[in-house]
Amino acid sequence: MSTPYYLRNHWYVAAHAFELTGTKPIARTICDQAVVIFRGEDGEVGILGDRCPHRFAPLSTGEVCGNAIQCGYHGIRFDRDGQCTHIPGGLPVPHDFKAKHYPALERHGFIWIWMGEQAANPALIPDFHENADPGWAPVPGYLNLFCNYQLMVDNLLDLTHVVFVHKTTLAGGGVTETPLEVKVEGDRVSAQRMMFNVDTAPIFRAARGLAGNIDRWQIFEATPPCYIKITLGAREAGATTPLGEPVHMVLNGLTPESATRTHYFWSTTRPWGLGDKKIDELYRSMIELAFNEDKAIVEAQQRLISADADNVLFVNFPFDRAGQSARRILKRLMSEEQAAGKKLAAAE
Amino acid sequence: MSTPYYLRNHWYVAAHAFELTGTKPIARTICDQAVVIFRGEDGEVGILGDRCPHRFAPLSTGEVCGNAIQCGYHGIRFDRDGQCTHIPGGLPVPHDFKAKHYPALERHGFIWIWMGEQAANPALIPDFHENADPGWAPVPGYLNLFCNYQLMVDNLLDLTHVVFVHKTTLAGGGVTETPLEVKVEGDRVSAQRMMFNVDTAPIFRAARGLAGNIDRWQIFEATPPCYIKITLGAREAGATTPLGEPVHMVLNGLTPESATRTHYFWSTTRPWGLGDKKIDELYRSMIELAFNEDKAIVEAQQRLISADADNVLFVNFPFDRAGQSARRILKRLMSEEQAAGKKLAAAE
Amino acid sequence: MSTPYYLRNHWYVAAHAFELTGTKPIARTICDQAVVIFRGEDGEVGILGDRCPHRFAPLSTGEVCGNAIQCGYHGIRFDRDGQCTHIPGGLPVPHDFKAKHYPALERHGFIWIWMGEQAANPALIPDFHENADPGWAPVPGYLNLFCNYQLMVDNLLDLTHVVFVHKTTLAGGGVTETPLEVKVEGDRVSAQRMMFNVDTAPIFRAARGLAGNIDRWQIFEATPPCYIKITLGAREAGATTPLGEPVHMVLNGLTPESATRTHYFWSTTRPWGLGDKKIDELYRSMIELAFNEDKAIVEAQQRLISADADNVLFVNFPFDRAGQSARRILKRLMSEEQAAGKKLAAAE
Repeated sequence: MSTPYYLRNHWYVAAHAFELTGTKPIARTICDQAVVIFRGEDGEVGILGDRCPHRFAPLSTGEVCGNAIQCGYHGIRFDRDGQCTHIPGGLPVPHDFKAKHYPALERHGFIWIWMGEQAANPALIPDFHENADPGWAPVPGYLNLFCNYQLMVDNLLDLTHVVFVHKTTLAGGGVTETPLEVKVEGDRVSAQRMMFNVDTAPIFRAARGLAGNIDRWQIFEATPPCYIKITLGAREAGATTPLGEPVHMVLNGLTPESATRTHYFWSTTRPWGLGDKKIDELYRSMIELAFNEDKAIVEAQQRLISADADNVLFVNFPFDRAGQSARRILKRLMSEEQAAGKKLAAAE
Repeated sequence: MSTPYYLRNHWYVAAHAFELTGTKPIARTICDQAVVIFRGEDGEVGILGDRCPHRFAPLSTGEVCGNAIQCGYHGIRFDRDGQCTHIPGGLPVPHDFKAKHYPALERHGFIWIWMGEQAANPALIPDFHENADPGWAPVPGYLNLFCNYQLMVDNLLDLTHVVFVHKTTLAGGGVTETPLEVKVEGDRVSAQRMMFNVDTAPIFRAARGLAGNIDRWQIFEATPPCYIKITLGAREAGATTPLGEPVHMVLNGLTPESATRTHYFWSTTRPWGLGDKKIDELYRSMIELAFNEDKAIVEAQQRLISADADNVLFVNFPFDRAGQSARRILKRLMSEEQAAGKKLAAAE
Repeated sequence: MSTPYYLRNHWYVAAHAFELTGTKPIARTICDQAVVIFRGEDGEVGILGDRCPHRFAPLSTGEVCGNAIQCGYHGIRFDRDGQCTHIPGGLPVPHDFKAKHYPALERHGFIWIWMGEQAANPALIPDFHENADPGWAPVPGYLNLFCNYQLMVDNLLDLTHVVFVHKTTLAGGGVTETPLEVKVEGDRVSAQRMMFNVDTAPIFRAARGLAGNIDRWQIFEATPPCYIKITLGAREAGATTPLGEPVHMVLNGLTPESATRTHYFWSTTRPWGLGDKKIDELYRSMIELAFNEDKAIVEAQQRLISADADNVLFVNFPFDRAGQSARRILKRLMSEEQAAGKKLAAAE
C-alpha cells in the first residue's frame, strides 16, 4: 500500500478536554504519528511526539512535572515546545536535544492538534461552541473505528441509513422517500432533508414525547477535513415550532489515526433539559447504541475495501450527493496541498 | 506468496443445510471469495458475493426479504441471480446494477456452491446420500482448520495416525502393521486396510460392545478436489459379518477458505441405532475429540510449512500412498484447468 | 525487513533445567529456529529441529521414548543426533532420514544450545555457577519479551533507570547522581557504581533490614552475545562490610527468539538465607514486579523502533557507556563472523 496522505495544515481533535486530568499524559496516534498529550500545572495543554529522543521510550509512560513531561525510563524532561529542560545526574542539556513539537489548543471542550508545516491558525478551528457554551447540555463520547475516516463522513452525510441500521432509535417515516437537498459553497457542503407528516422516531418519542405523526428535519454542515455538524429536529405534524430548530445537534470530529483507523469524537448536545441527568442518560444510551451500529457497518465496509483495494468503485445515488461532494472537496484540497509541498521542496 | 490456485469448475460444500434457517443469511469465505448464503421464502438457496455494489457493505449484515436479500446499510435488494430488484426512495434500478452470483444447490443435507466459469453440472456433486437418506443416522459437524485443505486430505487418507493421535478413541491393534492397499482409477483413489484378529478400538467397544479381539476394516474413496468417504467397520474376530459392512461411515468435505484455512464439513453416519440419542451423543463426543486432535496436528504442520514455504519436501512411506495419489491427481487437474484457462484467454 | 543476524558460534540459554521433567518435550524458537528440547531416560538432554522430516509435524507434539523422541503424528522416532531410529509398521529406516540436530548441554542449572557451524566449545559457556552451586539460594524466572534482546542488554547495563521505573522496589538515593565507571577488556565490559551514604532502597530494607542511610554498589560484567552478571550490595553507611560483597546477584541470559522477541532467563541468587522460603518469596515478588516494569518499557521502545525502523539514532549520555560498549563489541563480532562465513563460502 502507498503511504496514505492526510490534509496537514488543519486542526484535528486530539482528545476530549475531560480526558486530560491529573499528571497522567495521554498516548494517541494521529495521522500515523504517535503523540503524547499532557496538561501542565498551569493548565495549558502540550502535545509532543511520543518518543524520547534519548532511547525511543514513549514519553507517555512518564508523568507531568511542572509544565514539562518527564520520560518514564530515564527521567529526562521536555517542555511544551519539545525542548529538553533536565537530564538526571546534573548533566548539561545539549541545546538541540528536543522532542518533536505540535501546536496545541483547547477550545469548545476539545483539545486540538495542528499537523501541518505552516503556522497554526486558530481561526480555522470549527465552531463547535455548542459542546461547551452555557445554555447547552452536551453528552460527549468517543469510538475507535477500524476504518478510514471518509467512510464515516459518508455515513454522517447520508442519514437514509437510519431506517436500516438504527431500527430501534433513529429510524422513522419519510427518510428514504424524501430527497436530500445539497448545496456546495467553496469548501463547505450544506444539506437538508425536510419531512412532513411522517411516522415519529423512537428518539423523538423518548426525548420529547412525540408519539404521533411529526414534521422532521435533518440539517448538515460539513467542513474539511472531517467535521460534520448535524441539526436534528421534529415537531408535532403541522405545529408552529420553527422548522430547523434543534431538538438536538450532533457535533462530529473524525480524526484519522491511520489509513484504516479513526478516532471518532462526538457530542450530542441540546439547548433544553440542562442538568437533567435522565435526559442525558437517554441520549447517551440511544446514541451509543446507534453509533456502535454504525461502527459495525463502516468497519465491515473497510474490511471488504481492504480485501480488494485495487477494485473499489463506489456507485452514487441521489442520497449520496452530500458525501460525494465532501469527498470531491477533500480530494481537491489534498491535491493542492501535495502540489504546494512539491513546489516548496523544488524551490529549496 | 503467489496467489493460491483452487480447482474452480467443481462443487464445494458451502454449509450444512441445517445452518440456514430463518431470514438471517450466512457470511463465509470460500476459495478466498467472501459470499453470502441465504434461503428465500420459497425455500430455495441463493449464494451471492458478500459485497453490495453500492458502497461495499456486506450483504450478510442484512436480511432476507421474500426471495431477495436486502443490504443492511441502505436497504438495496438483490435476487438470487444477483440482479438488483429494489432501491429505497423509489429510485429506478440500473439494469446492470448487480451483485456477483454463484450457482448454488441443496443436496444430501449440504448446501453446494460452484466456483467456476463453466456451466455448473449437478451430476458432479459427490454421492453423500448417507447424510440424508432414510435408514441412516447422521451426526454432522464442522471445524475451521487453520491449514491448507490438502493437509487434511493427507490425514484422512492415512489412518495409521489413529494410533498416535487418537489414543482414547480410534487407536487399536493392527493398524500400523497392516499395509494399505491402494487403487487409482481415473481421478478416483480407492484404498483399504483389512486387519484380522487384532486388539479392539475404544470406539467399537463403546458403540458395538466389541471388547475382545476383532477383525477391522478401513475403506476409503477419494474424489477431487476434496471429498473423502470412509467406511469403518469391525466384527468379533472370525465372525461372519461381511467384511466391508459399515459400523459407521465418515463423509468429509474440505472446502478451502484460503490457502491456509479450511472449512471442514463432516458427517459420521450409521445404518443402525436410528433415533437413538445416546448413540448419537457417543459418536458426537468421540468424533469431536478425535477431529480436534487432528486439527491441532494439521495446524501445527501448516505453521511449520508457512514458516519456511520454499523448503517443503515431503517424504513418502508406503502408508502415504493414497494421499500421495490424491495429491498427484489434484496437481494434474489444476495444471489442466489453468492451461485451459490460458488458452481461453489467448483465444479471446 | 532484512533477515536479522545473530551471533551463531555461541551458546544460548535454551531453558531452565527445571522446565525439563517427565517425557513431555519443550517447543521453543531460538534465533528464528523452531527447536524441540527433551531429556532421555538416561537424563541427558537433546535438542533437535522441531520438524519431523516426514510431513513437517512438530516433534514436540510427541513424547520421549527411551532416549529418542517420537513424533506425535505417525510415531517415527529420532535419537539425540537427529538420526531416525524407528518407523512404525517395521519399515526400513533410510540412513539419511534425519531431523536437524543442535549441540546441547546442561550446566549451572540451565540447558544450553549451540547455534553455530563450528564445533561447540563447552568452555564458552558463561560462568553462572551461582545458579546451581551449594552455598547459593537461587530464585530463577523467565519472561518472554516482545523486543530485540539488545534493548534488554542496554537496560541491564544502565541501572539509573531503577529510580524512574522501579519506584517501589529498586529505587534509592545516589543512583542517578553517581557516575558509572566503565572498563572494556577484549570482548568483556565491566562497570561499577559505588554510592556512599545514600537513601536506602525498598529491596535492601525488606531483605536486610537496612532502613537508614546506606553505602550501595552495582557491579556489572557483560560478555557477548547476551550475558550480564550483576552483583548488588549495600551496607549500613560507613559499616565495615567489604565493598562489592553481594547481598544478591542477578544472572541474566537474553536469548533471541527473533529480531523482536527475547527469551529472558534470569536468576536472582544470594549466598545467605539458604532454604528460607520467606526470603525466596520476597525476592521472587520484588524481582518479578520490577522485571515486568522493564518488560513494559523495553517493549514500548521496540514498538517505536519498529514503527520507524529506518530512523533510529540513539543519543548516548555518560550513564549509557556500558551498554554502548557492549553494542560496539557485538557489532564487531557480528561483522567478523559474517566476513568469516563469506570467506568460507567463497573458498568452497
